[in-house]
Amino acid sequence: MPDDIKKFEEVFYGLAEDLRQQCIEHEKVPDLVWAWFEKYNRGLSVIHTTQLLLGRDLTSDEYLHAATLGWLVELLQAMMLVLDDIMDSAATRRGRPCWYLMPDVGMVAVNDAPMLESAIYLLLRKHFRQHPAYVHMIELLQHVSFQVELGQTYDMLVATQDLESFNLEKYNGIATHKTSYYSFYLPVALALLYTGRSSARNLDQARNILLSMGRYFQVQDDYLDNYADPTTLGKIGTDIRDGKCSWLVIQAMRLCTEEQMAVLRENYGRNDDNCEKRIKELYDRLQLDNVYSMYEEAALQELNGLIDDVDEVDGLKKTVFTVFLNRIYRRGK
Amino acid sequence: MPDDIKKFEEVFYGLAEDLRQQCIEHEKVPDLVWAWFEKYNRGLSVIHTTQLLLGRDLTSDEYLHAATLGWLVELLQAMMLVLDDIMDSAATRRGRPCWYLMPDVGMVAVNDAPMLESAIYLLLRKHFRQHPAYVHMIELLQHVSFQVELGQTYDMLVATQDLESFNLEKYNGIATHKTSYYSFYLPVALALLYTGRSSARNLDQARNILLSMGRYFQVQDDYLDNYADPTTLGKIGTDIRDGKCSWLVIQAMRLCTEEQMAVLRENYGRNDDNCEKRIKELYDRLQLDNVYSMYEEAALQELNGLIDDVDEVDGLKKTVFTVFLNRIYRRGK
Repeated sequence: MPDDIKKFEEVFYGLAEDLRQQCIEHEKVPDLVWAWFEKYNRGLSVIHTTQLLLGRDLTSDEYLHAATLGWLVELLQAMMLVLDDIMDSAATRRGRPCWYLMPDVGMVAVNDAPMLESAIYLLLRKHFRQHPAYVHMIELLQHVSFQVELGQTYDMLVATQDLESFNLEKYNGIATHKTSYYSFYLPVALALLYTGRSSARNLDQARNILLSMGRYFQVQDDYLDNYADPTTLGKIGTDIRDGKCSWLVIQAMRLCTEEQMAVLRENYGRNDDNCEKRIKELYDRLQLDNVYSMYEEAALQELNGLIDDVDEVDGLKKTVFTVFLNRIYRRGK
Repeated sequence: MPDDIKKFEEVFYGLAEDLRQQCIEHEKVPDLVWAWFEKYNRGLSVIHTTQLLLGRDLTSDEYLHAATLGWLVELLQAMMLVLDDIMDSAATRRGRPCWYLMPDVGMVAVNDAPMLESAIYLLLRKHFRQHPAYVHMIELLQHVSFQVELGQTYDMLVATQDLESFNLEKYNGIATHKTSYYSFYLPVALALLYTGRSSARNLDQARNILLSMGRYFQVQDDYLDNYADPTTLGKIGTDIRDGKCSWLVIQAMRLCTEEQMAVLRENYGRNDDNCEKRIKELYDRLQLDNVYSMYEEAALQELNGLIDDVDEVDGLKKTVFTVFLNRIYRRGK
């Protein structure tokens, strides 16, 4: 895996040079080479999916193409995270100060987000203008960006509502648009387009499974926020204090008595140690870890069922999805 | 002109419905129908340019197409103004509170900007997917958006520098990228693409003249900020107090003595009545209104020269530019 990351990073330096060349005539523009700190799961997925679809190792040209598409997914995520942190007034992102809090950045960050988005299409044009699926790639990236923006908006609207209005339908709506489209569907859809296997049927099958998998991933996230060891997770969960529309609180509301509901109402979403402790005790009393385990097994079964049903006749491969699923099943961070 | 505006607005309601239809499956998304308060100069330019290129009135289909492209320009401007106001911490825009200051908006506005940008490509796809220049239109809009973002960044970088570092080169760089590309070049380029007259030569000629005209427009803006009657202008100029890299202060630095430079250094960019008064007196002593009149005549002559040289053989028309120029020459607001 570290080799994967290194090779993928090398492609980035070439792309950064492409952008620098396009900017050089306009004097100094802000350094796009910022916190590429993640493990690039989404970007690497494009490469792995392409390998699985072709059923062989990639030539060096194919690697470069798939890695470039992978970087476009990373740029889209970067844009979204820059905005997300501003909207949430977040302080840190993966242990480092948020971009908008960096010295000399500040509110210019709101312009950097569209700059990152523009970079996606500049790079796509440079590297894929001759590809038969060029227009379809543009439209896919635009469609997915729009889904992410809708998800952001939905999230913000729901966040201002009362605890009691939270429900699974809203929860799934946010998870689908804000996370699943770009993290799960987009990398596979790009690989399908790149390899010329993007029949409507293949894209539909992929979307159906991957959006479902993305929702499962989001539930895991919410579970880990409360139950994971903070040293493993790399951060201390704040969903309870922040009053988030979390899968756990929705389950708690489903299972609690009238009195327990009063406890929830009184203590959820307060930045106070005691309030947080009372909610955590309630979660334990309701055995939400067991509820989660049952959910996880059911989700696994459902996803495996969907994968079993995949029709491979147009060149889609079931392994694309099983690899994805194995990577996240029972993850601890 | 009021008829023009009304007809153009009618097209907007249809487009808003397109977007609503695309959003309807995702529950409530924020109301995109916000402050369409401007006189739509940029949007209407697409229609007028199309008429001039074809040399006749438009059919109702052609009108709808040109007006739709005009609305895309307005959406691009809307995106840019939303971000601009956040970055400048502005209070009002055309006499109304800025979008990010509206009740229930706030920092969600940073997400609304990319939403407006996405709307451009959703609408383009819906209405022009079959047009032979569809891909070229996408690329043009992306290219111009990127220019605007570069201009924003450049503007922010220059704004944090010392008064003495301001110069015409930086001034023109900001004006070109931040204003001229989208306000002047984009409407004409879209009309050329729509009418199938977008040879490289036509686009180059149009860009050359229109970027130059946009710089002249920006100089006018700076002149009016200080010299126009606030009742005519509709606002009270604040460039001196804000310490803007204005054309006037660059001229002042070019013409002033050492002592007058000390006055500039001491009083420019301070939010203080007396300081502002001292700068205004200095501008008067340096007769910047005369300097401006001379500039304006020279600019007019240069632009007329460029227009005279236009080669109409590929279907470009000189009148496209003269109409533009007549609309802004000696404008009072």
